[in-house]
Amino acid sequence: MARKKSRFLQTPIEPFTVEPGLTADQILLRMERISFQGRMLATAHRVWQKMLEDDVTIFLGMAGALSAGGLRMIVAHLIANRYVDCLVSTGANLYHDLHETRGQHHYIGSPHPDDSALAEDRIDRVYDTYASEEEFISNDSWIADFAATLEPRPYTSREFLHQLGGHLWKTTGRDGILTAAYRASVPIFCPAIADSSIGMGLSQARQQKPDCGHIDIIGDIVESANLIIRRPRTASVVLGGGTPKNFINQASVQAEFYSPEVTGHKYAIQIVTDVPHFGGASGSSLEEAESWGKLAADSARAEVHADATIALPILTSALAVSAPPILARRKPPVFSLASRVMTIDGQTVPSVRFEDMNAPAV
Amino acid sequence: MARKKSRFLQTPIEPFTVEPGLTADQILLRMERISFQGRMLATAHRVWQKMLEDDVTIFLGMAGALSAGGLRMIVAHLIANRYVDCLVSTGANLYHDLHETRGQHHYIGSPHPDDSALAEDRIDRVYDTYASEEEFISNDSWIADFAATLEPRPYTSREFLHQLGGHLWKTTGRDGILTAAYRASVPIFCPAIADSSIGMGLSQARQQKPDCGHIDIIGDIVESANLIIRRPRTASVVLGGGTPKNFINQASVQAEFYSPEVTGHKYAIQIVTDVPHFGGASGSSLEEAESWGKLAADSARAEVHADATIALPILTSALAVSAPPILARRKPPVFSLASRVMTIDGQTVPSVRFEDMNAPAV
Amino acid sequence: MARKKSRFLQTPIEPFTVEPGLTADQILLRMERISFQGRMLATAHRVWQKMLEDDVTIFLGMAGALSAGGLRMIVAHLIANRYVDCLVSTGANLYHDLHETRGQHHYIGSPHPDDSALAEDRIDRVYDTYASEEEFISNDSWIADFAATLEPRPYTSREFLHQLGGHLWKTTGRDGILTAAYRASVPIFCPAIADSSIGMGLSQARQQKPDCGHIDIIGDIVESANLIIRRPRTASVVLGGGTPKNFINQASVQAEFYSPEVTGHKYAIQIVTDVPHFGGASGSSLEEAESWGKLAADSARAEVHADATIALPILTSALAVSAPPILARRKPPVFSLASRVMTIDGQTVPSVRFEDMNAPAV
Amino acid sequence: MARKKSRFLQTPIEPFTVEPGLTADQILLRMERISFQGRMLATAHRVWQKMLEDDVTIFLGMAGALSAGGLRMIVAHLIANRYVDCLVSTGANLYHDLHETRGQHHYIGSPHPDDSALAEDRIDRVYDTYASEEEFISNDSWIADFAATLEPRPYTSREFLHQLGGHLWKTTGRDGILTAAYRASVPIFCPAIADSSIGMGLSQARQQKPDCGHIDIIGDIVESANLIIRRPRTASVVLGGGTPKNFINQASVQAEFYSPEVTGHKYAIQIVTDVPHFGGASGSSLEEAESWGKLAADSARAEVHADATIALPILTSALAVSAPPILARRKPPVFSLASRVMTIDGQTVPSVRFEDMNAPAV
Repeated sequence: MARKKSRFLQTPIEPFTVEPGLTADQILLRMERISFQGRMLATAHRVWQKMLEDDVTIFLGMAGALSAGGLRMIVAHLIANRYVDCLVSTGANLYHDLHETRGQHHYIGSPHPDDSALAEDRIDRVYDTYASEEEFISNDSWIADFAATLEPRPYTSREFLHQLGGHLWKTTGRDGILTAAYRASVPIFCPAIADSSIGMGLSQARQQKPDCGHIDIIGDIVESANLIIRRPRTASVVLGGGTPKNFINQASVQAEFYSPEVTGHKYAIQIVTDVPHFGGASGSSLEEAESWGKLAADSARAEVHADATIALPILTSALAVSAPPILARRKPPVFSLASRVMTIDGQTVPSVRFEDMNAPAV
Repeated sequence: MARKKSRFLQTPIEPFTVEPGLTADQILLRMERISFQGRMLATAHRVWQKMLEDDVTIFLGMAGALSAGGLRMIVAHLIANRYVDCLVSTGANLYHDLHETRGQHHYIGSPHPDDSALAEDRIDRVYDTYASEEEFISNDSWIADFAATLEPRPYTSREFLHQLGGHLWKTTGRDGILTAAYRASVPIFCPAIADSSIGMGLSQARQQKPDCGHIDIIGDIVESANLIIRRPRTASVVLGGGTPKNFINQASVQAEFYSPEVTGHKYAIQIVTDVPHFGGASGSSLEEAESWGKLAADSARAEVHADATIALPILTSALAVSAPPILARRKPPVFSLASRVMTIDGQTVPSVRFEDMNAPAV
Repeated sequence: MARKKSRFLQTPIEPFTVEPGLTADQILLRMERISFQGRMLATAHRVWQKMLEDDVTIFLGMAGALSAGGLRMIVAHLIANRYVDCLVSTGANLYHDLHETRGQHHYIGSPHPDDSALAEDRIDRVYDTYASEEEFISNDSWIADFAATLEPRPYTSREFLHQLGGHLWKTTGRDGILTAAYRASVPIFCPAIADSSIGMGLSQARQQKPDCGHIDIIGDIVESANLIIRRPRTASVVLGGGTPKNFINQASVQAEFYSPEVTGHKYAIQIVTDVPHFGGASGSSLEEAESWGKLAADSARAEVHADATIALPILTSALAVSAPPILARRKPPVFSLASRVMTIDGQTVPSVRFEDMNAPAV
Repeated sequence: MARKKSRFLQTPIEPFTVEPGLTADQILLRMERISFQGRMLATAHRVWQKMLEDDVTIFLGMAGALSAGGLRMIVAHLIANRYVDCLVSTGANLYHDLHETRGQHHYIGSPHPDDSALAEDRIDRVYDTYASEEEFISNDSWIADFAATLEPRPYTSREFLHQLGGHLWKTTGRDGILTAAYRASVPIFCPAIADSSIGMGLSQARQQKPDCGHIDIIGDIVESANLIIRRPRTASVVLGGGTPKNFINQASVQAEFYSPEVTGHKYAIQIVTDVPHFGGASGSSLEEAESWGKLAADSARAEVHADATIALPILTSALAVSAPPILARRKPPVFSLASRVMTIDGQTVPSVRFEDMNAPAV
């Protein structure tokens, strides 16, 4: 019949069939043949495998209360095993990670409690999750004390966070995002560090020492773009939108300005709950990113509309089966992060000015 | 320290740790100790186990394009294995199930195609899923032809759908929602059957035979309430809201009117993407349901904000491990559905009028 | 400069400027030149004016708790002044309208109350809106009593609701949706009437009189399609999605089957809060509707993502200025609804079988 | 009847009635008696009036593409007429404002275009809004050139943005957010300035002059908290969430740390599209803010779930009628912003260290 020949009707949906004992990767394999967000999550699994197979530098952006929400050891795992090469995060996610790495906890709570009772007990709420304000204040002081020990000069967030991760590792010996990134020499950028309790800790350091706590976030722009100029083939994995999403894309756009080899991310995954139709960047579609040149026209993409606390445990449990053979072959970029100027694969990546590849050689 | 003693800080979050080879049930076990919707999905798993362990009648409501989206064999599995005792569905989900049981397919498509090109090829789109309009028209005729064979009298949607499932099973011998429900004698109610292609098929039957295609949806109200009057301990599992969500709750409220033993569902799970703050019933919270008496005050609850195409494959894959021992012990209600008046555990459940348990015995 | 010539950069945004005393129509005029949902709402205003100017039959679909939420007199106004020609509604919206027309109220409440305290006081909550359960029970009885007075035969929801509106008008003399529709002879279809308290009232009528309360919702399908076959140029205004959205579209698709003159709605407005990416019909886009032939390829469209309790007061206040001159010229279809078979412009519209325009004349 | 006495049923909904010629303030007055988000918008109008009447310092946070979307002249109006006293913004909103103040435009586009065609034409898309990439690049250079003229030392974003606004005013003489804030001496904080094209411009300045473009965002934390220590009674109006929402709250929490007089915002309005149940800060409820002490327990609040491109034109058109008499009486804080250290009401507000009001007087 004529309808069979429509070019639009090529690949039938295969209904998901339930079986006992299915592992995450088997579940996602079956979800590739169903519809809507289930297929998108399975596609994210597929795209992540492809980006690991290809010679690209993988950025991970994280926004939303992922650390407080219980996903920090997943992110630490992704860093330690080099599923990702560079982290861009909100300050809150790094702060909540530090909170737990210091041996403190977030607690299971209720989404509709008596908030004035919580306020009386000095409990801070994040939807259904609680934390002690006193412990938060002690973290702020701990950060302030550390920042006051640093040589008083501007630090990119990348350099500062590496130092902070090192200090955290030395004092706790515990796993977490900051300590994993420190140990694996994976850079962390935090462009909105001033909008977080890490920023608050840094500001409190000035009570002790007025000339400390200088974060050169403009230097972060330069360094992140230079990183891409050096390794123009990139991938972006975004959880939750926010400043990390845009900062990763901005680094690519900025790098393209100075190097013709940069043409947008080759791979892109985003797991967001926001929607595009109100115009905000968090919910903007990957198609939209293409118009800006943030994304290469032929890039492999997956856009999942789901809460990361559901999507990420499944996705990374599946990758834990499918990715190790690829990771074993993978040659990720090698960073050294201990000083003001970082190196990538042995070459310095300046944060002072952009490397202009368009400029005529002298 | 004082803060340790706050009654609000009892149960610490345990960050999810990634391991290779985790099965769905192991993943959900770990997700019970994280936050946000991840914990909610894990709680849904726990609550479903509890409702299977308890002596309750379990209603499943399904709205949204779940069948077209690839979840129909999951629903068939839940019916066949008596994870649920009664289905309330939109017409579309039953129709799309019939479409595939008849050997036709839905197809993987794109969410942003050229819709006028699709229209030219007579392809109907549901977000990223395509189907052939010609095949849909053939289904309508198939339904019309069947409806025209029935004795011309009013049928509750429950009776009609059982007959339809039987005819489908006899002509195809294939598994699906309608055929599983037929074979397992699980009743299906479809209060909004007129708003679907099954309704269109029924209406076309009148071209052949003017007095056929009468669905007594008011009878469905009576029968569903009587079912609850007979078995006052109930549970509600709702996928996607819509008319099924309200119909299940309405049946409980209506039953309570005639029997003091009915006091709202003892267990409730809802997996929805809609939100409460616009006032629509689909997004309404389980707390709101308590105000109406739709839900018992001490009911166990789980409310998950997620797309069913992600949540349901995970949840049912986990249940496939955790539930079988419980199912083996479970004594589900036994229905016979072949005639105008259904029976439950051997007793008739009239659809003519409510059984008034408040009325004095004669 | 080259960039000026891009065909994509034609119409500059004109930032909204604040002034005292702006009326709704002036505000929407300014909002036509801004972005996102603001422009969409202004476009809805423009499209509605166009559909009033053109010779089309305008369907209004309403789902979500619009009547309880305080919008019922707007809908009554739209009906009485023939901004619309046919209403398709959920049962709840008609029931909540009847509740208030009977002199009872919904009340301003809180979205996060103690729901068990509400349950104790027998207060039913709809997000931040309360109502008395006792009053609801009295409505159910009132509907049951009325239904029991009707001659025992099947009624389409259209016929029944006209009778109900008439009875309500006669007993209260108050304005509202049902009474306005009765007085203006505007048909109301309610395909999911069984999923509402009107359905519950009808079912309770059978306690008095077993053979009453028969609603022929399949007849509604036939009648609504025949209406479109008679007047093939249509427009669809949808508030909130749900069964009315699909029923209006289904009527068009069904009509197209029997008449080559029907080619989908010429105008479409939808004001919804749901999103397309989970696949549900409520959130489905107008583009998607085109693939099904529900919408003509060249139709004028506006899709607004907003709560109707914000959008509708603005939009209709603006129309109250812009539309009256158009309404004065408009020749809306004239219905008579008092009997089993309705007429449109003096011609009967059968509900027994479809009028087949493809059939050769005898 | 007993039900009449329930304490929960006090204030009946009054259905909105349509009339020609209603102005925005009249519309919102009527919307105070309906439900859901309509009432919330009307409540926002009421709360804003109250905060203007009271002696509080009003912060306005803006995130999302509000400037590109056509709302920048509304924000400029709010600043110029001192509806607000301090702006906290994303970089993008200030950059898009500068873009238009420099005489360039954003353009009306389509939400589903061919993005590769846009990329070819070098058009950047924000949902349904387009802009020329070449013009954006010229803005970046313009910012870079200006930044290179500044004395090379760290600037808080507040100081830098005041200088930038001044330069913009001098070179264009046009109204906009930055120029209005400059002329009205209203401070602007931009904690995530590195995540924007303003940050990109600053980074490009270093190509010309390596030691320029230093933004001391930690100084912004100190200065914003000191501002609240000086004027402990505050109000927060938040559009769209993001970094501004948290930064305003953080300033209050930080100030409370150093002054017992600070006890959280006395008034709070938020107009957001995000939802609370995924745990992100953008969607977090005002109740949650209370647990943190960000909001006083008895604060007047309004939380509106709506796109700002609909809500803000209505709300500010209404305020343009209701607020002027209050504004005439209002004594807003007087800032001087031209130098490194700002003053408020003639007193310096240091950005070097927090003023510790808990410290014993010497």
